[in-house]
Amino acid sequence: MSTNFLSIECKPIGLIHSSLKRYSKIPVQPSFSDVEGVIEIFNEYVDGLKDLDGFEYIICLSYFHLVKSPAPLQSTTHWDNIKHGIFAIRSPIRPNPIGFSILQLLNIEGNELNVKNLDLVDGTPVLDIKPFIPSVDNRDTEKIGWIKGKF
Amino acid sequence: MSTNFLSIECKPIGLIHSSLKRYSKIPVQPSFSDVEGVIEIFNEYVDGLKDLDGFEYIICLSYFHLVKSPAPLQSTTHWDNIKHGIFAIRSPIRPNPIGFSILQLLNIEGNELNVKNLDLVDGTPVLDIKPFIPSVDNRDTEKIGWIKGKF
Repeated sequence: MSTNFLSIECKPIGLIHSSLKRYSKIPVQPSFSDVEGVIEIFNEYVDGLKDLDGFEYIICLSYFHLVKSPAPLQSTTHWDNIKHGIFAIRSPIRPNPIGFSILQLLNIEGNELNVKNLDLVDGTPVLDIKPFIPSVDNRDTEKIGWIKGKF
Repeated sequence: MSTNFLSIECKPIGLIHSSLKRYSKIPVQPSFSDVEGVIEIFNEYVDGLKDLDGFEYIICLSYFHLVKSPAPLQSTTHWDNIKHGIFAIRSPIRPNPIGFSILQLLNIEGNELNVKNLDLVDGTPVLDIKPFIPSVDNRDTEKIGWIKGKF
């Protein structure tokens, strides 16, 4: 089947406001970042925030807007000099440059989510917010392929 | 800022093949599902699978193609009769209907990923695959808002 059978259109629900202004300075993962910042939710989506403040962590799906396609299908990373498949690494430069960040939610003020652990550059469009639920989202495994022993 | 400033276009990299044929029969989360199935990766993306077979779990971002917009901003769930904000629940009917599923990767044969824990209906377009890394993706918290005690 051709990949052309369907094109999917998404619209941002908000924007990242972050002290991270340059892509080259971004922490490689939220779990390695203490950076705080704000997710601005556009006014027409604010009613969707009801009860989110009860959660400590949120899943933030974002769009790596600085990435220019086409992405390579294999790439090296910070961790070694071997080219790995793009679906076996977490590089933002990928066929659909959708970011997945688990952020600590400090509090919510109106349409602003104050968050910690940011790994997203200032101005990044946000596509979705979901509550993080440990019993649903955590997995225990030692089988972590090429990344094992890297950090 | 208006949400109209940017429209983001995504293209599927593959398709879900699943015994789950009807939306109403879908398990509510991968962690509650023993369903096995196949992720077909389109041929032009197969080189991106290199080294993915070393991982036990994968993060699968998908597009809930059966959802017709517009989504409500608040909705009830299986778990209670209270309307919660769409960003505080995991309903597929959301402003950008992007699915987030952590699936067990059984093995890879060519362009087919045999997976377990499927919560996706047959024919669902796949947008991205990322390797699941416990030290990056797990979080420990008791603060899970309205869902606490529900399961």
